[in-house]
Amino acid sequence: MSVLKGACIIGQSGGPSAVINASCYGAIRTALDSDAITKVYGAAHGIKGVLDDKLYIMDEEDPAELELLKYTPSSALGSCRYKIADPDVDDTDYKRILEIFKKYDVRYFFYNGGNDSMDTCNKISKYMSKVGYECRVMGIPKTIDNDLFGTDHCPGFASAAKYIATSITEVYLDARVYDTGMVTIIECMGRHAGWLTAAAALACEKGQGPDLIYLPEVDFDMDSFLADVTRIYKEQGNCIVAVSEGIHYADGSFVSEAKTAATDGFGHAQLGGLAAMLANVVKEKTGAKVRGIELSLLQRCAAHCASLTDIEESFMAGKTAVESAISGITDKMVGFECDRTNGYVCKPKLFGLTEVANYEKKVPVEWINEAHNGILKPFIDYAMPLIQGETKLPREDGLPRFARLKKVLAK
Amino acid sequence: MSVLKGACIIGQSGGPSAVINASCYGAIRTALDSDAITKVYGAAHGIKGVLDDKLYIMDEEDPAELELLKYTPSSALGSCRYKIADPDVDDTDYKRILEIFKKYDVRYFFYNGGNDSMDTCNKISKYMSKVGYECRVMGIPKTIDNDLFGTDHCPGFASAAKYIATSITEVYLDARVYDTGMVTIIECMGRHAGWLTAAAALACEKGQGPDLIYLPEVDFDMDSFLADVTRIYKEQGNCIVAVSEGIHYADGSFVSEAKTAATDGFGHAQLGGLAAMLANVVKEKTGAKVRGIELSLLQRCAAHCASLTDIEESFMAGKTAVESAISGITDKMVGFECDRTNGYVCKPKLFGLTEVANYEKKVPVEWINEAHNGILKPFIDYAMPLIQGETKLPREDGLPRFARLKKVLAK
Repeated sequence: MSVLKGACIIGQSGGPSAVINASCYGAIRTALDSDAITKVYGAAHGIKGVLDDKLYIMDEEDPAELELLKYTPSSALGSCRYKIADPDVDDTDYKRILEIFKKYDVRYFFYNGGNDSMDTCNKISKYMSKVGYECRVMGIPKTIDNDLFGTDHCPGFASAAKYIATSITEVYLDARVYDTGMVTIIECMGRHAGWLTAAAALACEKGQGPDLIYLPEVDFDMDSFLADVTRIYKEQGNCIVAVSEGIHYADGSFVSEAKTAATDGFGHAQLGGLAAMLANVVKEKTGAKVRGIELSLLQRCAAHCASLTDIEESFMAGKTAVESAISGITDKMVGFECDRTNGYVCKPKLFGLTEVANYEKKVPVEWINEAHNGILKPFIDYAMPLIQGETKLPREDGLPRFARLKKVLAK
Repeated sequence: MSVLKGACIIGQSGGPSAVINASCYGAIRTALDSDAITKVYGAAHGIKGVLDDKLYIMDEEDPAELELLKYTPSSALGSCRYKIADPDVDDTDYKRILEIFKKYDVRYFFYNGGNDSMDTCNKISKYMSKVGYECRVMGIPKTIDNDLFGTDHCPGFASAAKYIATSITEVYLDARVYDTGMVTIIECMGRHAGWLTAAAALACEKGQGPDLIYLPEVDFDMDSFLADVTRIYKEQGNCIVAVSEGIHYADGSFVSEAKTAATDGFGHAQLGGLAAMLANVVKEKTGAKVRGIELSLLQRCAAHCASLTDIEESFMAGKTAVESAISGITDKMVGFECDRTNGYVCKPKLFGLTEVANYEKKVPVEWINEAHNGILKPFIDYAMPLIQGETKLPREDGLPRFARLKKVLAK
């Protein structure tokens, strides 16, 4: 097969993570080093940068700054949450994308993101194929939510998991420093899938984790929750709880949005989020000193606590996407296939974009205990290898030294 | 002067920090290595452990585990918030303390804590002197609040400051990833002194810090705040704000406790804390997407992000306390004297306990800008040397490996 020569565009989309830039760097570096790829563009704010003709020339960046992307959180090129239309309904965006691709002779398109991004990637791939424009399209996964189909796990999950387990280990020690007792509720991200909250269980392996863990994969019951907390608080004088932001009642309504009499008799939405709301319910019920902690953005951008395994795998995903495309492959997402039988081995594996797009992978219910308030060993065996190793993030003046890109716009 | 032989008790009190155990280890290790000190006891939950005759025998701990205290957050011996009476009013506790001191032949008492702990330390010192029981009493400072009198800074402050500046640097990148804009309000600890919130300004030195910083040293004005945020949000499309939990209106009332019409017309106390409340006010005023982040306990227990300078200085404070006492000194707190004229040099300096107790040191108002929404260079010059260096915390299975003490009780 003859080599397809042309420029490439790399874009990032969806919520950022501590390592999405490591994937991006894997793709950029490999593309810059390739003979087939003539120019490397970064799309400003994902597909919106393509539509708006806002492309950064990666060839003009300082290689040392680019390399710092391995350790830099958030999406260095900017992200978007733009939902592209179905091309059969409205192909305006696709025509524009084709126009830009032709303008810059783009023959490679790499899109770095989660579920929605794989859907965007898939639609662009199918459109280009339909109109006969030769362009190889590859998805590079990213999501702290860990909910992409097919792949063993998603780049970004492990670093957030490591931060959650580390922080909870620390809070565990802090929360039991007095002999007066406390109930601590820690809220983790994950609207529909409980992977991140389950990661709190990794701290239990050191005997310094939460007593109770609630995931959105099963229904939440306030009475059972209060009974669990009260029992443990009475037994131990302390209780630490990890909850997913997405826990919901049996009728499907989110606990965070529920207007319970215990929290606010006037039915006002709670400002402080789920952790504060549950802490207040526990306080009213038990009289215990309570504290609600929402890990918020901290858990998805904590590059200083990233997993080296995650960084290296994320880089590999970006690199593999470019190498695969150059070798002639298109219309795939790079995922991982892992073997944990004898140590831990992670290899890239390609998945069809159509298979991946818009499907959410949840924590298997068999990995949740019968009482629906704890996580079982299969999850630990699954997640523990992923959080190994510390970031090599350089520091300057005692603070992280993150990448500073010039972002020279293509004319 | 003849050597005073006898046992020692080390206690910890007040809110924990990432490095209070480093100080404790400095004292324990030095005491264990000393010929003058015959036995080293750790008081369970501070002075309460003395009153309850609950003393752990430090001599029986594994030296390698003890050494891990340098990197272990929270108070390993347990803490308390017990306010000891004025001995002239009620000397019950003091008689009991003397009884325990005699029982275990305690001739050295080291107390590791903040303002209240130095007060306790002072009262015990004066009482023992008054009743003619020879016992050398030394305070070892600790407080992330950095508000102790005399000393250049307090052990614990720098690690919390480093965590705050690191996290805000990361949130800075995360919060501007979309082109749609966001206002992010980050709440730091500090009820009366704004040192921790000021530490957010360290991130500004990298161009990745908050746009606005509000300390409790000056009055807060909601209208000026909203005008500041609105202006910056309009100019940049983004705005990051750091606020101290202790900001208050001109009448002295805490903003966190105020019931403003904008937040809750029915006058309910807000559950979610100050950040959530201010975020909501901004949202109603500007229509911007907002996020409130409360750093909560995370900022005081984040040993994984501790400053090596802080760890080493904290150790030195504990070591100096024991060495000074053995050399004949009593009734002092170990503080620091620093020289920043040519690099950074920190030396221990002793302060009289009476001078230190119950006095709060605040951020000099000259270090706050005229508009009362930012921090000036003198603070940066003051704080930057303190956050240098990374912890050497060992990891096990990718997570912090903290000290595990046996805590053998003395009979």
